[in-house]
Amino acid sequence: MSKLTDLPKRILIGRALRSDKLGETLLPKRIALPVFASDPLSSVAYAPGQVMIVLSVAGASAYHYSPWITIAIIVLMFTVVASYRQNVHAYPSGGGDYEVATTNLGPKAGLTVASALLVDYVLTVAVSISSGVENLGSAVPFFVENKTLCAVGIILLLTLMNLRGVRESGKLFAVPTYVFVGGVFAMILWGAYRGLVLGDDMKAPTAGFEVHAEQTGLAGFALIFLLLRAFSDGCAALTGVEAISNGVPAFRKPKSRNAATTLALMGGLAVTMFVGIITLALATDVKMAENPAQDLLKNGAPLGADYTQNPVISQVAAAVFGDGSFFFVVLAAATALVLFLAANTAYNGFPLLGSILAQDRYLPRQLHTRGDRLAFSNGIVLLASAAAVLVYLYGADSTRLIQLYIVGVFVSFTLSQTGMVRHWNRHLATERDPNVRRRMIRSRAINAFGAFFTGLVLVVVLLTKFTHGAWVALLGMVIFYVTMTAIRRHYDGVSEELAAATEQLDEEEVRPSRVHSIVLVSKVHKPTLRALAYAKLMRSHRLEALSINVDPAETKALQTVWHERGIDVPLKILDSPYREITRPVIDYVKSLRRESPRDVVSVFIPEYVVGRWYEHLLHNQSALRLKGRLLFTPGVMVTSVPWQLDSSELARKRARKRAEWSAPGAVRRGPVIPPKREKGEKGEKGAKGETGVTSQVPGR
Amino acid sequence: MSKLTDLPKRILIGRALRSDKLGETLLPKRIALPVFASDPLSSVAYAPGQVMIVLSVAGASAYHYSPWITIAIIVLMFTVVASYRQNVHAYPSGGGDYEVATTNLGPKAGLTVASALLVDYVLTVAVSISSGVENLGSAVPFFVENKTLCAVGIILLLTLMNLRGVRESGKLFAVPTYVFVGGVFAMILWGAYRGLVLGDDMKAPTAGFEVHAEQTGLAGFALIFLLLRAFSDGCAALTGVEAISNGVPAFRKPKSRNAATTLALMGGLAVTMFVGIITLALATDVKMAENPAQDLLKNGAPLGADYTQNPVISQVAAAVFGDGSFFFVVLAAATALVLFLAANTAYNGFPLLGSILAQDRYLPRQLHTRGDRLAFSNGIVLLASAAAVLVYLYGADSTRLIQLYIVGVFVSFTLSQTGMVRHWNRHLATERDPNVRRRMIRSRAINAFGAFFTGLVLVVVLLTKFTHGAWVALLGMVIFYVTMTAIRRHYDGVSEELAAATEQLDEEEVRPSRVHSIVLVSKVHKPTLRALAYAKLMRSHRLEALSINVDPAETKALQTVWHERGIDVPLKILDSPYREITRPVIDYVKSLRRESPRDVVSVFIPEYVVGRWYEHLLHNQSALRLKGRLLFTPGVMVTSVPWQLDSSELARKRARKRAEWSAPGAVRRGPVIPPKREKGEKGEKGAKGETGVTSQVPGR
Repeated sequence: MSKLTDLPKRILIGRALRSDKLGETLLPKRIALPVFASDPLSSVAYAPGQVMIVLSVAGASAYHYSPWITIAIIVLMFTVVASYRQNVHAYPSGGGDYEVATTNLGPKAGLTVASALLVDYVLTVAVSISSGVENLGSAVPFFVENKTLCAVGIILLLTLMNLRGVRESGKLFAVPTYVFVGGVFAMILWGAYRGLVLGDDMKAPTAGFEVHAEQTGLAGFALIFLLLRAFSDGCAALTGVEAISNGVPAFRKPKSRNAATTLALMGGLAVTMFVGIITLALATDVKMAENPAQDLLKNGAPLGADYTQNPVISQVAAAVFGDGSFFFVVLAAATALVLFLAANTAYNGFPLLGSILAQDRYLPRQLHTRGDRLAFSNGIVLLASAAAVLVYLYGADSTRLIQLYIVGVFVSFTLSQTGMVRHWNRHLATERDPNVRRRMIRSRAINAFGAFFTGLVLVVVLLTKFTHGAWVALLGMVIFYVTMTAIRRHYDGVSEELAAATEQLDEEEVRPSRVHSIVLVSKVHKPTLRALAYAKLMRSHRLEALSINVDPAETKALQTVWHERGIDVPLKILDSPYREITRPVIDYVKSLRRESPRDVVSVFIPEYVVGRWYEHLLHNQSALRLKGRLLFTPGVMVTSVPWQLDSSELARKRARKRAEWSAPGAVRRGPVIPPKREKGEKGEKGAKGETGVTSQVPGR
Repeated sequence: MSKLTDLPKRILIGRALRSDKLGETLLPKRIALPVFASDPLSSVAYAPGQVMIVLSVAGASAYHYSPWITIAIIVLMFTVVASYRQNVHAYPSGGGDYEVATTNLGPKAGLTVASALLVDYVLTVAVSISSGVENLGSAVPFFVENKTLCAVGIILLLTLMNLRGVRESGKLFAVPTYVFVGGVFAMILWGAYRGLVLGDDMKAPTAGFEVHAEQTGLAGFALIFLLLRAFSDGCAALTGVEAISNGVPAFRKPKSRNAATTLALMGGLAVTMFVGIITLALATDVKMAENPAQDLLKNGAPLGADYTQNPVISQVAAAVFGDGSFFFVVLAAATALVLFLAANTAYNGFPLLGSILAQDRYLPRQLHTRGDRLAFSNGIVLLASAAAVLVYLYGADSTRLIQLYIVGVFVSFTLSQTGMVRHWNRHLATERDPNVRRRMIRSRAINAFGAFFTGLVLVVVLLTKFTHGAWVALLGMVIFYVTMTAIRRHYDGVSEELAAATEQLDEEEVRPSRVHSIVLVSKVHKPTLRALAYAKLMRSHRLEALSINVDPAETKALQTVWHERGIDVPLKILDSPYREITRPVIDYVKSLRRESPRDVVSVFIPEYVVGRWYEHLLHNQSALRLKGRLLFTPGVMVTSVPWQLDSSELARKRARKRAEWSAPGAVRRGPVIPPKREKGEKGEKGAKGETGVTSQVPGR
């Protein structure tokens, strides 16, 4: 055990100078809460409003259904939180819903969950940023007037930040999240005090409006459908709950218990805020409508296209604190900031999930590397582009974007909970200890209820929202699913093609007998001399230098120098009337192979290494192309012998800097658990005195 | 001599199946004329009009100066043709003005000429296409109504054609050029017959208009200035004359004499057509103005913005053949086509000049390869973009674009002729044969007069047109000049850095003593086994396999298989907690180098070769990056051991197809003159029985 705690420490301290690893300290609950819960907590900024907007279809009188809907959402929230508390204990590795579904329901279910989550990350960005801009706009109208522009601008900003590798820090999350939570609670308490104790008659800015009911006298099935739709939209409050279950490794010990506590805390906070906001909204007579321009009436006349509908939270704040007051502005700013942080979590989660999927070969393998900049960049750009397109298409209107949301969340909730039921069944089949069995049976009951309830909600969401936009989300999921399946099929095909025959490889593939080495030469300069020296060291069976006669004068000069220096490697000249380099070399190599098919040809290419991008345009193009073509020629090895020019120092520095880039999501992943060390050396030679090389890199 | 004629033949016949070389038959005069002269011949479509447009500033009465200007242009044309006939004899290699200036006046003069020519190629495209669209528009108004769009569209079309590698064929040029020349002569003869014999009163469509003189009563210096400006604009007829001097190698034998004859032929045709068109224009009362909308009056009132001024050639055709008649339309179409062909010559000339400049290291070396697709593509795209920008900025208005033209032409004329004077001086210093001396002295006199006259015109052009747009062309020349100088300086710097010390290289650079080979291994599959087999063949001093422990389970499996198969190479495992590949390998290599700095590390990387572009995204990314990083590590060789997957066959086919692409300009360059064969082999080993490899590639 001490070994286990020791190792991360050694890595941490041993690498203390490397900035990218600094973030990987373990998170206490008070920091973990804002890091993982900014998404679900921030959703109380828009979820209550959605409920009222849908109800307004049946007129303001329908608002009296909202407490019932709130209760349903509370029950759902507690169910989901209780269910995930089971996940957190059963899967402390942080694999999350994808791992749970894959392990218990098979790879197809896992892939479905993954597709759903990927779509959801995109929507988290789109919805959170749109809603954030709307909240900012309630304080500074400029933002709502240029909604799409501002939203896309913020997406761009977050993208650049994440591409540059701005490290997610606990504190960065903690301050605005706590200000937001504190502000909402202050608003609720102050509102309750003013209303109940002082008896103030607080009025929201929209209190005086009437709502034009699009459908009056709704009853029976139509009414139930409307209530279900309102409930579906309100479920936006549940998005992001699963984040904690992905982040268990980042918690301080005891990890699972702390994560479970944080989950409960988050659920409690979210529910309280949700209830408080919707109660105050009803108390201050907030009026919301789907099409405020035509369905909100002032003195019987529609408000018209100029009217912008502020979010419920800011209307309530205006009623409680006073419109434009200090607290009002602070709360609006904190709300917007938390929403942007919620969007930022998707920037961390998306590449993280990508790296897990890459490990299972559903995505390009390079995503697999933890903190590989290029891979992460691709993921971030993909996420940001998709979100920006959605924001653009939907005019940064959070109400319309929310119609797409939630489908993915509930797909993954349902499958994950179903998987958990299987998990407990499997364990119960072998477990004998009655105490443990009792706990497992209880957990199974919770998860079963969770699976049932979230499945029901999923059906409701699909039924009520399919035509409103949920089909877009489903389409996105299908695209991800099909792409990832195709990638996996490709990898499987390749690995089958590459699989070594278990026996008699020698029959299958004729062993090469000799090596014919060729050093490509254009001039006698340092890189060439180095390449010749290296090639000689390799002691191949035959060695010759090869030059392409592109310019007779240069070739003549080369031969003269070759002779003068007395270089003891034979120099062969190939004519190239078209001044090509590649074709004559390829043809020559092929002819050698044809002469003696069992020989291997080893081509040494002296290369200069330059540092500036435009220098690349000036050098090595023919070497590059030649290498590219030689790779298609069977029985050939291609060896680059680099010569570092002075300017290459620049590129080395750049590469080092790049390597120190910190990948988004480092904090929420928790520190590296070093792989079980299976190091060992086999064979006769070269085994002496190097066992220590493995992970302590000397001279750092 | 028979040897010399034999060689190209052998190459041609031996490669008859390769489509890209088919075009390289030698050109008879009747084909060479349209190939090389489409540019100067087509310029009679706009040059006469320019003269009239400038004169119109002083009112229609100033048109009576045009015969004098025409005479000046004729004298200039004959001077230039006579001068270039000397060039063609003295420099049959086709190096053109750049070679002449570099050889005789030094590299700076050569580079100036090259910059001027590059700018001129861009302007040839812009002017010819704009003028072609105007000519088309005289038959089909749609084209003038959407001038810029059509011109850019045609640039795009030509670009795509040339990028795809549509071969320039003699016939393609011959038909429209001869139709055009025939049409213009028919028009002149028919016009003369109608006017002089039938006594018809032919009237151009603009005959009834009056010209509002912007400046009336011009006299003295102002008048001279105007006449000089008209002359400058008329000199547009001389652009492209130098093309033949670049194309001497493409002519049938006797090359120089045939080229000289073609030059004379071209001069004669151009002059006759120019005179004919301008005479008919005066006879049919064509009216042209710089701002036709306000300066052309009908019954005393300006024609207004709706009026589009048709080119002189089409106005004359309308008068002689009848507006909209069959011959009128045929001539308009042929004119447009010839102008587009003239533009196409720039597409051939630009990359051709680029390859010569690359040979002298003023441009990236890869341009050097004859027919390298990538290099040519870059040149073509650069040319097309610059021309498209100009066309867009100047609204595809040939009159305004011509203001930029000509500067470059006359810079190169003047420097080339000056260089020729030097050339003769040099030869006269040694030549003793009085007959030859007499010829040389005559040639020198012609070139000296040419240099003087074209220099004078250059000064006139600069003075009269600088503010009208010539400064843009000069700026372009400066940009090319500075860029090419910088590239040359870079190459010189690198080659100095790389230069091998003449003696005692061993002191300067410690000779490596041993090779430590490392085979990178992830799994035991065919590529790995092949890499191991190859690495063993290379008999390095130490050989080990290296695997990065990214996933403990996989590593364990690898070790098991390694053991089971009894692979006799020691396997070393490096831990990589961050699942990186590159860093641990680099660190390990560095540590080896630190232990024994005189050793060389040879890294073998098994690679799969895939065929589809998207497969590249899925594979080899880490290998690629690793190779990139290793290149910056001194004392390392990087060897790729490729394994060709089935799909790589696709890529091989693609590469072969690409190799058969025919570069633009193949026809005008003439066939390859095989480099003087200096083949030979030196050294002790490997010399037996391979002497024949050099240029006859077996098995083709």
